[in-house]
Amino acid sequence: MQVYDTTLRDGAQREAISYSVVDKLAVARLLDEFGVGFIEGGWPGAMPKDTEFFRRARTELDLKHAVFVAFGATRKAGVRVQDDQQVRALLDAETPAVTLVAKSDLRHVERALRTTAEENLAMVHDTVAYLVSEGRRVFLDLEHFFDGYAFDPDYTAKVAATALAAGAEKAVMCDTNGGMLPSLITRTIGEVKGRLAVVLGVTEDEAVARLGIHCQNDTSCAVANTVAAVEAGVPHFQCTANGYGERPGNADLFAVVANLQLKLGMPVLPDGCIEQMVRVSHAIAEIANIAPDTHQAYVGSSAFAHKAGLHASAIKVDPVLYNHIDPVVVGNDMRILVTEMAGRASIELKARELGVDLAGHPEALSRVTTRVKELEARGWSFEAADASFELLARAELRAEQQDGALPKPFTLESYRVLVEHREDGAVVSEATVKVRVKGERIIATAEGNGPVNALDEALRVALTKHYPELSRFELADYKVRILEGSHGTGAVTRVLVETRSTGEDWTTVGVHENVVEASWTALVDALSYGLSRQVRV
Amino acid sequence: MQVYDTTLRDGAQREAISYSVVDKLAVARLLDEFGVGFIEGGWPGAMPKDTEFFRRARTELDLKHAVFVAFGATRKAGVRVQDDQQVRALLDAETPAVTLVAKSDLRHVERALRTTAEENLAMVHDTVAYLVSEGRRVFLDLEHFFDGYAFDPDYTAKVAATALAAGAEKAVMCDTNGGMLPSLITRTIGEVKGRLAVVLGVTEDEAVARLGIHCQNDTSCAVANTVAAVEAGVPHFQCTANGYGERPGNADLFAVVANLQLKLGMPVLPDGCIEQMVRVSHAIAEIANIAPDTHQAYVGSSAFAHKAGLHASAIKVDPVLYNHIDPVVVGNDMRILVTEMAGRASIELKARELGVDLAGHPEALSRVTTRVKELEARGWSFEAADASFELLARAELRAEQQDGALPKPFTLESYRVLVEHREDGAVVSEATVKVRVKGERIIATAEGNGPVNALDEALRVALTKHYPELSRFELADYKVRILEGSHGTGAVTRVLVETRSTGEDWTTVGVHENVVEASWTALVDALSYGLSRQVRV
Repeated sequence: MQVYDTTLRDGAQREAISYSVVDKLAVARLLDEFGVGFIEGGWPGAMPKDTEFFRRARTELDLKHAVFVAFGATRKAGVRVQDDQQVRALLDAETPAVTLVAKSDLRHVERALRTTAEENLAMVHDTVAYLVSEGRRVFLDLEHFFDGYAFDPDYTAKVAATALAAGAEKAVMCDTNGGMLPSLITRTIGEVKGRLAVVLGVTEDEAVARLGIHCQNDTSCAVANTVAAVEAGVPHFQCTANGYGERPGNADLFAVVANLQLKLGMPVLPDGCIEQMVRVSHAIAEIANIAPDTHQAYVGSSAFAHKAGLHASAIKVDPVLYNHIDPVVVGNDMRILVTEMAGRASIELKARELGVDLAGHPEALSRVTTRVKELEARGWSFEAADASFELLARAELRAEQQDGALPKPFTLESYRVLVEHREDGAVVSEATVKVRVKGERIIATAEGNGPVNALDEALRVALTKHYPELSRFELADYKVRILEGSHGTGAVTRVLVETRSTGEDWTTVGVHENVVEASWTALVDALSYGLSRQVRV
Repeated sequence: MQVYDTTLRDGAQREAISYSVVDKLAVARLLDEFGVGFIEGGWPGAMPKDTEFFRRARTELDLKHAVFVAFGATRKAGVRVQDDQQVRALLDAETPAVTLVAKSDLRHVERALRTTAEENLAMVHDTVAYLVSEGRRVFLDLEHFFDGYAFDPDYTAKVAATALAAGAEKAVMCDTNGGMLPSLITRTIGEVKGRLAVVLGVTEDEAVARLGIHCQNDTSCAVANTVAAVEAGVPHFQCTANGYGERPGNADLFAVVANLQLKLGMPVLPDGCIEQMVRVSHAIAEIANIAPDTHQAYVGSSAFAHKAGLHASAIKVDPVLYNHIDPVVVGNDMRILVTEMAGRASIELKARELGVDLAGHPEALSRVTTRVKELEARGWSFEAADASFELLARAELRAEQQDGALPKPFTLESYRVLVEHREDGAVVSEATVKVRVKGERIIATAEGNGPVNALDEALRVALTKHYPELSRFELADYKVRILEGSHGTGAVTRVLVETRSTGEDWTTVGVHENVVEASWTALVDALSYGLSRQVRV
């Protein structure tokens, strides 16, 4: 089975992705650690950055598992293959393998390429044969294969057969527009292998063994389509990390590999690689500067998260009954969410997950449970605010252990925030805080682009002298929700604050009828949690 | 074909989703506009908020297409069905249909439910028969169906047969842990229909016609699995809007419906509904306070976005060759690089829907389109803010008709908001506004439970003399989202304000880097819209 990754070429078509050469080197190393068989690095000659990447890769990239691949087009119409500059650039990339893209839909040949059906076949033949004669392994991507096949199956099959006859290792069926469903993939492959067997004079099994698959996610079926093709006998599949790609993206490498290996028992990766999945997925997301999808299958932080409630005790006893796989196998973890329905069992489980052992402290466990229920009845939600929950659990545990209260990094005397929309249209925010830090009374004022930002800034000004590490904390996200009142109370505001420091982020929550006070509570927890981490680490 | 939506019940299991009763009413109306056949509203009796929702739905929800469904469990073990409080709550919800969840995996029956195989069958039989005798259409969700079937096919099939024999309309196979692939779904259904045909004494076709499907997305195949089940003859499928749900979520309603209708030619929605897809998807995302997934199949803003490059002109000439469907069919638009080719048609449609006829006013239509695009590029979103959009469209139309600008009920000179957390712990908010109303300059100050409330109150104090009808307007909901900046701009805050008056509510939007100013913009639109309605009505 050939696991072929095109994160660095087709995946880079995703809006907003723009890798530097150093990024590309880092992504290639991660993919190699994950154990893919082929890494398509880019299009040398067409993109200056890719030319540079292939140059540096020769000395800086030492691949353990993967074959390095350059991507490009067949020769231009009416040009000798030896004279084609782009084909030359492919050879200059000095990769052991090359993937060529060719039109396989007659309409695209005529309307976009503006050449004849015959010349397109000649372009495929000449370029494949030339690169093979130069010692390259050659793959041929059949662009718009499935639409082309539906329009003119003879021609599309002929392009595939031409490439294979000229020495291509695989002819890759690309669902370029992404409109396929698994049943249509299965049916088409059944027909195609029959046609190819006749043309090439081989058995149907031999024919299907020369095919590859490349799916886009426009029907939300790219993973299923890829798996369906492999089940139909296709031994080469092209994917991208996290499904990055143009429009809704490509087939997600991680889901496809996990499905084949864990659901269908096909060992597509070298031993010991599949458990790198979560780490590699998240690291590539960081490099691409795209927030990891928390709900992504297998690798998302919520992929094995359960709203505990009534079933927490059952999940604790029999996790295997509530997870489709053991999350550890792909390097993930089961998470129990603390929700309105939470009981002792899920609180204990959640605390343990955060490294706070409440199991041996039944009184602290009771107090944490009671406190969480009280707060949730007033609109708090710890589901997405692990840091606030951990502070609460540690405080109760410490109280039980009679170490006294958790030391607070500072105490508030008062704050004042002012927002003005002036006559000239300018909008200004200013905050003043009065706090006590390690015995000292400090007053600080700052401006911000909004009331919460001003408050955050003023608090940092006040605390920096005693806690210089605060300068590394960054307010990464801020969410506000107004909750309807119940039982005669007024509406309250719930604020979630996400804070980031080097290599870590954490979320805290605050609830109050006043959005500024709710934000203040979450901000104070955010700084307290961050400062306590610095001490423990 | 039964299109069954469970956004409000199973979809609400997604982390961070927490609908108010008003949110649930709004989501139900949107789903009904989209033409689904069934809307599962929640679990009355188990969740106080859901009980309240079903109560209010009786008078406030007027469904055109959908059957309203209450969800609950079969009777408890060892309790007479007539005496079971939760079953009573299901009847009290007064919905025409009820969906019951039952264990169908023997391990869950014994270990989680802690009862016997026989008692579980009796619980299914008694509850279904009782609800049918009370005049309800009954569906039975077979929890952990596929895992249960793999473990003990006899028992799992027996649970399904028991429900159907007792009068359930459909027995719904739930892939609760989400571990299935399309080929496994197809194979299992082939076997199950054979077993059911024997037990029920019907043909295999009649047996499969009594089944339903409910898929979770843990293999990234929920959409494909659902489609595979329908292709295998299953005539009832359960989905959630945008695939919201626990862990990686449920099968996405929009992708499933589009695949069935546009790829397999099955008309599963009433005529004229599928083009509401993008609007309904985005509006539900706004209500759930989850950023719409820009790369979601069919409905994402990038679903038909092409990085133009070499093929720009080819795409323009032959868009059909580069899109798997015509995006307009689902209410989406093709986007190419900077050249926005889209918008006019959907803006005209939207305006018409709100009673503003832009069709005969091409210049106004152009200006509205340009203005909406400009604002959206800066973070505005009109998808859930019809009132703001209507004000904008009416203003441009009026300008074209040379009636001059739309008269503003008031103009702002300046405002100032102060929030103080005092030494005694009290938190106070105070706002002062200076406005001109019908030629008069008015200064008013008010307190509120937060800065936006104080501003709202001060504005009302200032305006009430001239607009006494303001006293009937109530701030019903307030949502805030921080949007990440792009291209060097800072983050901005988007505020949605929902206002209610007698028998009507409307939503407005404001965007600014300062949350108070963004709220002010939305508040001003909210009052302006409400006052203009009073005039027109």
